[in-house]
Amino acid sequence: MNILIVHAHPESKSFSGALRDTAADFFKSSNCNVAISDLYSMNFNPVGSPRDLKETSTVEYFDYQKEQLYGIKNNLLTDEIKNEMAKFLKADLIIYNFPLWWFSVPAIMKGWFDRVFAMGFAYGPGKGVYSTGTFRNKTSFLCITTGGAEFSYKESGVNGDINKILFHVNHGMLNFVGMKVLPPFVVYGPSTFTEEEKKSKLIEYRNYLSKLNNIKPLFY
Amino acid sequence: MNILIVHAHPESKSFSGALRDTAADFFKSSNCNVAISDLYSMNFNPVGSPRDLKETSTVEYFDYQKEQLYGIKNNLLTDEIKNEMAKFLKADLIIYNFPLWWFSVPAIMKGWFDRVFAMGFAYGPGKGVYSTGTFRNKTSFLCITTGGAEFSYKESGVNGDINKILFHVNHGMLNFVGMKVLPPFVVYGPSTFTEEEKKSKLIEYRNYLSKLNNIKPLFY
Repeated sequence: MNILIVHAHPESKSFSGALRDTAADFFKSSNCNVAISDLYSMNFNPVGSPRDLKETSTVEYFDYQKEQLYGIKNNLLTDEIKNEMAKFLKADLIIYNFPLWWFSVPAIMKGWFDRVFAMGFAYGPGKGVYSTGTFRNKTSFLCITTGGAEFSYKESGVNGDINKILFHVNHGMLNFVGMKVLPPFVVYGPSTFTEEEKKSKLIEYRNYLSKLNNIKPLFY
Repeated sequence: MNILIVHAHPESKSFSGALRDTAADFFKSSNCNVAISDLYSMNFNPVGSPRDLKETSTVEYFDYQKEQLYGIKNNLLTDEIKNEMAKFLKADLIIYNFPLWWFSVPAIMKGWFDRVFAMGFAYGPGKGVYSTGTFRNKTSFLCITTGGAEFSYKESGVNGDINKILFHVNHGMLNFVGMKVLPPFVVYGPSTFTEEEKKSKLIEYRNYLSKLNNIKPLFY
C-alpha cells in the first residue's frame, strides 16, 4: 500500500503533528510506503493563479480551468503542482491531516485542492464525478484537531454537527473526484489534554488505522 | 452606510469582477462609502503563520491563537492584517465576492478569515459567538459564481443543496462572529452566458442590492 499524508499545521510539534507522525509510523511498520506533503515546511503556495503554469495560453484573460487543461496537455504546470499530482497518483490511501480553522481546512490546504485537483487531472473532459469519478480506486479520510469541545460539534451543539460542517470537504472535494471517504478521525480540544490523554488518543488513532478496512465509508 | 467588498478572483475581467463593480457602483450612487479588498490585486498572503506578527511571544512553540491575542494586545500584527481589520471594523455591510472553488472560497479568501478574524479580534476572551458575537451590528452575504448549473446545486442535484454547501461559511465564519447573514446571491454558470444574459443578471443583482433591508436573514 502507498500512503500519502497531506499535512497542514504551522507548528510541527502540535498534536496535529503527533497524529501525522503516528500515522506515518504505523504504516511504515506495516510495510507500506509513506509519503508526506507537509505544506508549511514545503512553503506550499496556495494561491491559484497564472503562476500555476510556466506559460499560459494567453495573457488577455485568465480562465483558470481552461489554463489548467492547457497546462496538463502541454506539460506546462509548475513542478510544485506536478510533484503533488505524482504523489497523489501513486497513493492508495490519502490522509488529510489538519487543525479545523473556521469550519474548514487551513488556507494552505485549500490551495492544495484549488491547484492540484486541476481540471484535466481530477475532473473534466472524459472524466466523471462522484460514483464515476477518476479516483474511484483511492480511499481518503480527514484527521482533524479542533479548538472546541465535542459537545459543541453535535447536531444540538452551538457549532452544529461535525459531519454537516465537513460536508464541503468530504463530499465536495474528496468524494467529488470519486474517492471512497471514510469517517473523519476527530480530536476535540487537544490543547486541554494531559500527557496521559494525549498518549491514549494516539493509541486510539493507531486502532482506527488498524481497522480501516472494516470501516464503512460515508455516503451522501 | 459603509460597505466593504472582499473580492477574490484571479481575473479582474471575470463575471465575478463585474458583480464586484456592480455592487461598488450601486452603493456609491446611493451615497455610501465603498471600500474594496481585492485580494489578488493586493497580493494578499493567505497563510496563517508566525509572520502574522512582527515578533511572536516565543519561538519555542507557535500557538496561533495565543500569538494572535498577544499580537493584538501588543500591537504586533503586520500592517496587512491591521489594515483589513480596520476596513472590516468600519463596515456596516460586508460582501464576500468570489467564484465557488471546491465547494468553498478560494484559498486566498480562506486565508483572509484565518488571519483577519483573529482571536482577540473576532472572538475570544470577553467576546461571545453567534447571537452574542462581537459583530452583531454588521450584515454580510456571499456573492458567488459557479461553474456548474443550478439544478446540480439543488437538494436532489449531484452536488447537493447550495445552502448545505455554504453552511461552513455562512454559519461557521459569518454568523459565528455575530453578523447577520443574508441569503447568498448565486450566479450559476456565467461562463455560458450571452452578453444579454450577463446584463440581465447584473440588473437582477442591482435589484437584490436595492432590497437588502427587506431580505430575511438566514437562520441556523
